[in-house]
Amino acid sequence: MTQTADDILKNLDLTAAELSGGSRAVRSPIDGSTLAEVHDTAASEMPAILERAQSAFKAWRVVPAPRRGELIRLLGEELRAAKDDLGALVSWEAGKITSEGLGEVQEMIDICDFAVGLSRQLYGLTIASERPGHSMRETWHPSGPVGVISAFNFPVAVWSWNAALAIVCGDPVIWKPSEKTPLTALACTKIFERAVNRFDDDAPEGLLQTLIGDAELGKVLVASPSVPVISATGSTRMGRAVAPVVAERFGKCILELGGNNAMIVAPSADLEMAVRAIVFSAVGTAGQRCTSLRRLIVHNSIREDLVKRLKAAYAGLPVGDPQAEGTLVGPLVDEAAGDAMTSALKAAESEGGTVHGGARVTEGVPAGGVYMAPAIVEMPGQSASVKEETFAPILYVMGYDDFEDAVEMQNDVPQGLSSCVFTLNMREAESFLTAAGSDCGIANVNIGPSGAEIGGAFGGEKETGGGRESGSDAWKSYMRRQTNTVNYSAELPLAQGVKFDI
Amino acid sequence: MTQTADDILKNLDLTAAELSGGSRAVRSPIDGSTLAEVHDTAASEMPAILERAQSAFKAWRVVPAPRRGELIRLLGEELRAAKDDLGALVSWEAGKITSEGLGEVQEMIDICDFAVGLSRQLYGLTIASERPGHSMRETWHPSGPVGVISAFNFPVAVWSWNAALAIVCGDPVIWKPSEKTPLTALACTKIFERAVNRFDDDAPEGLLQTLIGDAELGKVLVASPSVPVISATGSTRMGRAVAPVVAERFGKCILELGGNNAMIVAPSADLEMAVRAIVFSAVGTAGQRCTSLRRLIVHNSIREDLVKRLKAAYAGLPVGDPQAEGTLVGPLVDEAAGDAMTSALKAAESEGGTVHGGARVTEGVPAGGVYMAPAIVEMPGQSASVKEETFAPILYVMGYDDFEDAVEMQNDVPQGLSSCVFTLNMREAESFLTAAGSDCGIANVNIGPSGAEIGGAFGGEKETGGGRESGSDAWKSYMRRQTNTVNYSAELPLAQGVKFDI
Amino acid sequence: MTQTADDILKNLDLTAAELSGGSRAVRSPIDGSTLAEVHDTAASEMPAILERAQSAFKAWRVVPAPRRGELIRLLGEELRAAKDDLGALVSWEAGKITSEGLGEVQEMIDICDFAVGLSRQLYGLTIASERPGHSMRETWHPSGPVGVISAFNFPVAVWSWNAALAIVCGDPVIWKPSEKTPLTALACTKIFERAVNRFDDDAPEGLLQTLIGDAELGKVLVASPSVPVISATGSTRMGRAVAPVVAERFGKCILELGGNNAMIVAPSADLEMAVRAIVFSAVGTAGQRCTSLRRLIVHNSIREDLVKRLKAAYAGLPVGDPQAEGTLVGPLVDEAAGDAMTSALKAAESEGGTVHGGARVTEGVPAGGVYMAPAIVEMPGQSASVKEETFAPILYVMGYDDFEDAVEMQNDVPQGLSSCVFTLNMREAESFLTAAGSDCGIANVNIGPSGAEIGGAFGGEKETGGGRESGSDAWKSYMRRQTNTVNYSAELPLAQGVKFDI
Amino acid sequence: MTQTADDILKNLDLTAAELSGGSRAVRSPIDGSTLAEVHDTAASEMPAILERAQSAFKAWRVVPAPRRGELIRLLGEELRAAKDDLGALVSWEAGKITSEGLGEVQEMIDICDFAVGLSRQLYGLTIASERPGHSMRETWHPSGPVGVISAFNFPVAVWSWNAALAIVCGDPVIWKPSEKTPLTALACTKIFERAVNRFDDDAPEGLLQTLIGDAELGKVLVASPSVPVISATGSTRMGRAVAPVVAERFGKCILELGGNNAMIVAPSADLEMAVRAIVFSAVGTAGQRCTSLRRLIVHNSIREDLVKRLKAAYAGLPVGDPQAEGTLVGPLVDEAAGDAMTSALKAAESEGGTVHGGARVTEGVPAGGVYMAPAIVEMPGQSASVKEETFAPILYVMGYDDFEDAVEMQNDVPQGLSSCVFTLNMREAESFLTAAGSDCGIANVNIGPSGAEIGGAFGGEKETGGGRESGSDAWKSYMRRQTNTVNYSAELPLAQGVKFDI
Repeated sequence: MTQTADDILKNLDLTAAELSGGSRAVRSPIDGSTLAEVHDTAASEMPAILERAQSAFKAWRVVPAPRRGELIRLLGEELRAAKDDLGALVSWEAGKITSEGLGEVQEMIDICDFAVGLSRQLYGLTIASERPGHSMRETWHPSGPVGVISAFNFPVAVWSWNAALAIVCGDPVIWKPSEKTPLTALACTKIFERAVNRFDDDAPEGLLQTLIGDAELGKVLVASPSVPVISATGSTRMGRAVAPVVAERFGKCILELGGNNAMIVAPSADLEMAVRAIVFSAVGTAGQRCTSLRRLIVHNSIREDLVKRLKAAYAGLPVGDPQAEGTLVGPLVDEAAGDAMTSALKAAESEGGTVHGGARVTEGVPAGGVYMAPAIVEMPGQSASVKEETFAPILYVMGYDDFEDAVEMQNDVPQGLSSCVFTLNMREAESFLTAAGSDCGIANVNIGPSGAEIGGAFGGEKETGGGRESGSDAWKSYMRRQTNTVNYSAELPLAQGVKFDI
Repeated sequence: MTQTADDILKNLDLTAAELSGGSRAVRSPIDGSTLAEVHDTAASEMPAILERAQSAFKAWRVVPAPRRGELIRLLGEELRAAKDDLGALVSWEAGKITSEGLGEVQEMIDICDFAVGLSRQLYGLTIASERPGHSMRETWHPSGPVGVISAFNFPVAVWSWNAALAIVCGDPVIWKPSEKTPLTALACTKIFERAVNRFDDDAPEGLLQTLIGDAELGKVLVASPSVPVISATGSTRMGRAVAPVVAERFGKCILELGGNNAMIVAPSADLEMAVRAIVFSAVGTAGQRCTSLRRLIVHNSIREDLVKRLKAAYAGLPVGDPQAEGTLVGPLVDEAAGDAMTSALKAAESEGGTVHGGARVTEGVPAGGVYMAPAIVEMPGQSASVKEETFAPILYVMGYDDFEDAVEMQNDVPQGLSSCVFTLNMREAESFLTAAGSDCGIANVNIGPSGAEIGGAFGGEKETGGGRESGSDAWKSYMRRQTNTVNYSAELPLAQGVKFDI
Repeated sequence: MTQTADDILKNLDLTAAELSGGSRAVRSPIDGSTLAEVHDTAASEMPAILERAQSAFKAWRVVPAPRRGELIRLLGEELRAAKDDLGALVSWEAGKITSEGLGEVQEMIDICDFAVGLSRQLYGLTIASERPGHSMRETWHPSGPVGVISAFNFPVAVWSWNAALAIVCGDPVIWKPSEKTPLTALACTKIFERAVNRFDDDAPEGLLQTLIGDAELGKVLVASPSVPVISATGSTRMGRAVAPVVAERFGKCILELGGNNAMIVAPSADLEMAVRAIVFSAVGTAGQRCTSLRRLIVHNSIREDLVKRLKAAYAGLPVGDPQAEGTLVGPLVDEAAGDAMTSALKAAESEGGTVHGGARVTEGVPAGGVYMAPAIVEMPGQSASVKEETFAPILYVMGYDDFEDAVEMQNDVPQGLSSCVFTLNMREAESFLTAAGSDCGIANVNIGPSGAEIGGAFGGEKETGGGRESGSDAWKSYMRRQTNTVNYSAELPLAQGVKFDI
Repeated sequence: MTQTADDILKNLDLTAAELSGGSRAVRSPIDGSTLAEVHDTAASEMPAILERAQSAFKAWRVVPAPRRGELIRLLGEELRAAKDDLGALVSWEAGKITSEGLGEVQEMIDICDFAVGLSRQLYGLTIASERPGHSMRETWHPSGPVGVISAFNFPVAVWSWNAALAIVCGDPVIWKPSEKTPLTALACTKIFERAVNRFDDDAPEGLLQTLIGDAELGKVLVASPSVPVISATGSTRMGRAVAPVVAERFGKCILELGGNNAMIVAPSADLEMAVRAIVFSAVGTAGQRCTSLRRLIVHNSIREDLVKRLKAAYAGLPVGDPQAEGTLVGPLVDEAAGDAMTSALKAAESEGGTVHGGARVTEGVPAGGVYMAPAIVEMPGQSASVKEETFAPILYVMGYDDFEDAVEMQNDVPQGLSSCVFTLNMREAESFLTAAGSDCGIANVNIGPSGAEIGGAFGGEKETGGGRESGSDAWKSYMRRQTNTVNYSAELPLAQGVKFDI
């Protein structure tokens, strides 16, 4: 019943030639086993890749958007058909528990459905002109090839967010997945090909090109002037390197960088719900979501009670093989991640924190994986280590007395991705969502910071990078806006009443 | 009847102390006379300035937007009252002809009216949520202090585009005008104060701060992490320096950089209208608009005729004192601008071009100003010098046979601001506005590339920098977007059907 | 200092000829005095009036919308200048207290500002087409003359809501005010003329035409096929007569009819705020707003307390001359209104209600006016008389135990205008605003049902008629939508892949 | 290979019991054969039907919209699977040629895709409030059961336009198809059931209810107060009866009534394209589309040429069995339609028209069907019979000299559905789309009046009824708008600065 990784790779059309003999060994976080040895894209291939993208752009931009949407509809169908396989591969390669692997594929399906609808919209505006015999409008046109750099923790969904929109918008995609998750990327590329093969019209060659390689390859992509849009998901450090390079060549960046997401728990909160939300947000994906809950800001009147409940809940969390029934906490991605967690906990202790949990788990887990017990850290205040994002299941707990102080504490970190408040008090709830409330791109009430729906725009402020993806009008990032004034009269009036009679 | 610059400065509340004794001599392009000696802002003042902006932001962001709009309504009233004075000062300091100086102020007034309307909108979205008992929405909040860097050629309108929107959006403004036009900046600051004084509510101190100084001062502003938005208008060179600095600190840039704007004239064009449009676009503001017409791409069947008409029109253009009745072409901003024009014409000749006009005018013009006869340059093709923006009244003329070639020629420059086509053929007109048509931010039909209305979004692609200002939803650049999910149920379902039961 | 009605009428340009000798005596609700005897519009004048409106439409529809906006900007300026006079006249003619009279004029000013902004928007959409070489868009065009029927209780604001939008949208207005308030209508017409006189362009004759007369005259207007839009504010009875007539001729109705507005007060409510909100909403404008609070649905745990507080507050309410300093409750509009109040209270008693207050006040009030003490009526349930709208300061109080029952009670009336909840519980607050919550067009939290801002769309469901005015995209009701497909190719593909080769 | 109607009905799950023994004989226009004898819905069943719809509404309105969208996605899948069968049944029952039958089903599929995208949008607005501590927003909620009355000529697409949107919007549907096309309605109902059966969540019983019967049954539906929205497609006569009934009970109508659609052919038109467009628009669906081309307004300079070409094209049109390969003109729906055509042609002749074609075709066509040769009628002017819509392939041709006259002629009919111009002149093209251009809801350039894409809003003005369906924001007609003001502060400021201190 349970399939091996090899079965799954085969189901997903990956060939032996693609999976072996390459220089890049793909390691499963589950047990450290090598899933495949894939071939890197040589830097020398880049000029041809970029040229193919340009040619594809010239052809694709004039395909009517609803037709482009039809390709994405077919992609959605293929994703539905491949959901179990791709979800399992996400588990194998990124170490997610099965339900989260499937959830990630569901998110891909959702964004395809959404993009199909968009393909008959891509609305610009018609605008009232101040001049008689003139009409004004604003139209959105494709931008050109989009470079997508994705991270290991959402190895497939982030690509689909970008690709579904970009392709509907008329832009070819060049995808550079994390070097840790090339297999899921290759599998998505195959699934995309299935859709292309069913597409009645001709999809140009080069509509999707996937690059396998490390940061150096990414740098080439980022610096390419023929790629007007770079969508990069990853660490703030990465973003800080990428953004200026793109800016200097007047490209456009969609940055989805680090988060350091907090929950404020107010006295009126439904504590039972809060506990469930906290645990899912803090330990789901082993704390390796960009939206993982990292900071808990609790009213002092309920702090002790809440910590006690959390400790109880954490005590019962099944840590282990993510593909085993019932597991809720799988492995960290690699040893470095485990080390980073340990270091962070030490630093927190040195800053006065009290650590509960956080040790390496070695019993009852697959050998070769890095399994860590999620940690709760009671902090005396928001010290330096709390302000840093450690990609691990660490939850810092701090107290507050006054709601405004709690909001200030929530805002007082360099990152600005996601945030939430648990409260039944409507004044607190609403205040949290105002100009003087959370400074994050996402601010929720009575749900955790993670697990966004695709209908809203996803992304954050400050060191999170300012990009927006997925729903709302995030599609505009993949297009250029053109303002038109059309004079259908035989007169030539100037705006602002300027007179200039020759 | 005609007022001296001194009269005007006085009318605009500028005091003797402000206008004398400073280290920065302000030179009028009209006659090279020194209009004032203003005081530079010391770099040492910057910390206090930035702090004041932060304090102003904290206060202003919670003032309801329609109240903020009321301040801009008052600003519009004050601009109406000061229109003649400020328009004249624009002429004195930037060398514009009177009608264009007034037109620039009118544009300020228009954007104020527009911003007042916006102040009751600033629409975000309510969004259908996939989870029962949940609501989603997206709200726009103020971003924080906005740094505005403006250029000499639109010394006041560009500020107003930014300030009217920024202030309605809840953001204080720190303005660094061109070092060539500090007086109009100081005057606008005074006019703004008049509005503040009439404002019923308290406008916080530091809502508008104006910095006098050169590029070094601008650099300090650009690098300031507490200024999340930098709106910079000027050369591509400047933008290329500014953008990476802002990007590295995860700030947001609104860049309005160079243009190299073309008109395609098709066989069916109404040539009489085209001639008028060409002359206004090419020589208006002495060719120193970012939207000035620089390249004329004419169907070969009408090329000779059109050039002949243009030469005739150019022959009769009154060059001289911009404040004199009837003048259409005023001075260039300074000697360097005159030299640049001369060099560009030489380069064009060396590339095979035939230059008509372009000489310095010394008769019948005020001494001390740089007056140049506008130039028409017939080029054998779109060679290197044509692809560069020279801020002067130079019009390169090239021929085409096939409409698609003309569009390609139009697109084949690094800049992407404005463009237009003169044609009565609807197929050509519509094609020009498509994904395969003009690659510019502005694309017009049967009007020139310059003189945009404030109702549309203004800005361009490629080396023009990608920013948008003024109308449509350009206001969003001054705000941050927040996506909210509100759970009002007693359940905690996860998105994408993920199961995580603790 | 206090001006007589005569002074005010003169200030507002009304001439002796207009104010005397007519068949329609205008009575002040304050003291029953006759303010003027105005001349009715003869039914025989209607054909010429309608023709003038058509001619005005032909001319006005091609005036660019931003220019039309300029006329409304001037109207806003004139309203600011005339605010005190017009506010006072509203008081004289409709019996409002001074502050409310001024507030009504402020609302006119606000809508003018808003409409000015709109005049550069009136956004349609550009839409992605499924066919190559095709573009789609949707534009909004003026509809034609708009008939505005307004009621006595907002004698000027409702007109301005309609007129500011209609005129910016390109539509002439034919106004039929309440027969009880012709003077404020004539005054507005004069103020509009002041704006027209300052308008640089030519405003066509007949852009605004005001009809003085009774319901018979209104009927002629309503039945006129050349008036495509009828905006009618008044009773449900009136709306039920108007709507079918307009529907049969395929005109469009904007109906603003009766409300029977409720507040739910939950246990967590801030009772002090609630009391203030209740009193203002229930007795403001002497209960004669369409959004007046008429039904109070209070959780039984706080019911007694709240009623006690309300009785105390009511006891201190100054009833009397609306122009006297401090008065909060002015007269009802006429004797019939007083009688209706008395009857309604009797009916309530017969249904088991306990009435507090509600008697006629004769001491300390101007003779000749109908002054009633506001009434609180404790009801055993939501019986028949509670479900009817009586235009008077009657507040029915009912209890509830379960929040869902309270919502059901709120919805269980034929009207659907405004509603609100006072609660600090976010679950109750949010639920109230959902598909299963209030069925009204307006649903508020922690503010009363009346006193809407102009930025939102105003109007209600069910017997309230379904119309929307004022903010949001209410302007679309004054325009017609046109969907355009433009084929700029040389091919003729059919939609939906239909083949039809001749 | 070709299936019998019986095969198809079986494929579509219709049972023998449903297809026989009923009182309503269903006649095929192809050959007059009886396809089935279906059972009418008894008027006595209506109360239960309405109650089921109410119950379904209560349940469905709280199902999250994206979940509702999932049901429509499944419907789209089922329609794809049933496309050939349903398309063929449309041909059998409505007499359409095969390609048009399939095209109609494709349109159903397209609207489903579109509605799925919408289901994560249904965007309302968040709006800037003028009061501190307040937020405003506007949300769209389901309206309640929607009554859909459809016509024989688009027996399935019109239902899907309404149902896909209504169901995504949260509204149950009660469908009363044309009494001439009950089979396709029953088939759609079966296909909908297939989707319901695959839907994971519970779709409430009564989400779609289909009524079989004649106009009397429709009347009961139209008059039902528990059906807030009536969407009615059919004749102007029908609309004129329906609209007042709905208006009187304050329901909302979406009317899609008669069209009398014109094409202006200008001298610059691409005549070859024009001819193809004209023929498809005029004779497609045997002239029985509401958007069929009925009036040709040709510049006199090309009139003779164009008529000649048209006569040649008409001469070669294959009239006959719509299911036969190559047929372009199928039968009229019934004898009455044939008679109406004959009468209209006679009337035209009596008004001075010259009729080409228009006779009944009896050779080479199936016996029992009403096959008419399409007619071209050269008219001396736009006389009475031209202003009436006759549902038949009659094309009236009139000349013009001046473009403005042509536009006036186009507008001078009571209907206002669709219109177009063929011209290569951009001034004519653009003018046609302005406030002074076409007065229709649809105005096209260089494509015919029929065959709209689903992405735009479909519908027309004047006697066409003013409704809009399908794309753009037509979904708003199926929802109610709610304006919310939420006060999260502890203060209670009034709008418009009103003071009311108790």
